[in-house]
Amino acid sequence: MRKKVDADVSFCDFKPANAKKHKPNVCAFYKHQQDLRWKGVRDEPYKQKGDDWSKIMRRVLIGAHGETTKFHVRYFEISQGGNSSFEKHRHEHVVICIRGRGVLLFGKKKRPMEYLDTAYISPDTPHQLTNPYQEPFGFLCIVNAKRDRPKLLK
Amino acid sequence: MRKKVDADVSFCDFKPANAKKHKPNVCAFYKHQQDLRWKGVRDEPYKQKGDDWSKIMRRVLIGAHGETTKFHVRYFEISQGGNSSFEKHRHEHVVICIRGRGVLLFGKKKRPMEYLDTAYISPDTPHQLTNPYQEPFGFLCIVNAKRDRPKLLK
Repeated sequence: MRKKVDADVSFCDFKPANAKKHKPNVCAFYKHQQDLRWKGVRDEPYKQKGDDWSKIMRRVLIGAHGETTKFHVRYFEISQGGNSSFEKHRHEHVVICIRGRGVLLFGKKKRPMEYLDTAYISPDTPHQLTNPYQEPFGFLCIVNAKRDRPKLLK
Repeated sequence: MRKKVDADVSFCDFKPANAKKHKPNVCAFYKHQQDLRWKGVRDEPYKQKGDDWSKIMRRVLIGAHGETTKFHVRYFEISQGGNSSFEKHRHEHVVICIRGRGVLLFGKKKRPMEYLDTAYISPDTPHQLTNPYQEPFGFLCIVNAKRDRPKLLK
């Protein structure tokens, strides 16, 4: 179902004459404001519950407004001292750092991530993102639209 | 087929014991260098031929190294005065500006694109990206891995 969006988010008007305004799967333009916030994109919790993660939130850029893409594009931000879940799953991640810096654990490797560093995390690879630094660590995470549930690891 | 990559591109080592090094679909880390260049990612022409576009090139971040994602992630850069094809197709585009600024024509709308502005171009929407400015206009373009051939428009 289509999520409510701000009225001044721009949707293109090239669609069938009988289509209703803001019908799912029309064009959209999410204007970047500042501090990695986009008009029409809301803050959401990283996950609904769990104590295996901390100080991390999400903004769903593509995937929450009725798009038919085979992928979703999300922005995640980890505050100082925070971390994502240590987990694995069958679906892949593409992670692109766009704010600050952090650390990516994937497989047996641990690598610092800086601006525009890009990681491909293949199926069933244990992974975790952490932010040991003072500035927020923000990254795009692109995933298949259809995906399996993560398995938490310890 | 797996493309050749620089030897010091980092691939994670969490894979089956019988997997060969650099086997398709292992993890990868593409270190950002400068000016929107990544270690292990080569410059490619925008298209193989055509006179409907100019001064635009591509770098394929995800999709050229055997990844099994349902999507590909490409970086395109348009120099001053250049443009992509004016076209439409069934598959969608997600465009995220990460360098300079440009102009997006989609449907009947024309919008300036600046840093981190994000557009979703829905199926069969005519679209074109141009750079009337002096600085390079660079953007991520994320598409389904399986997609139809574009139809050129005039």
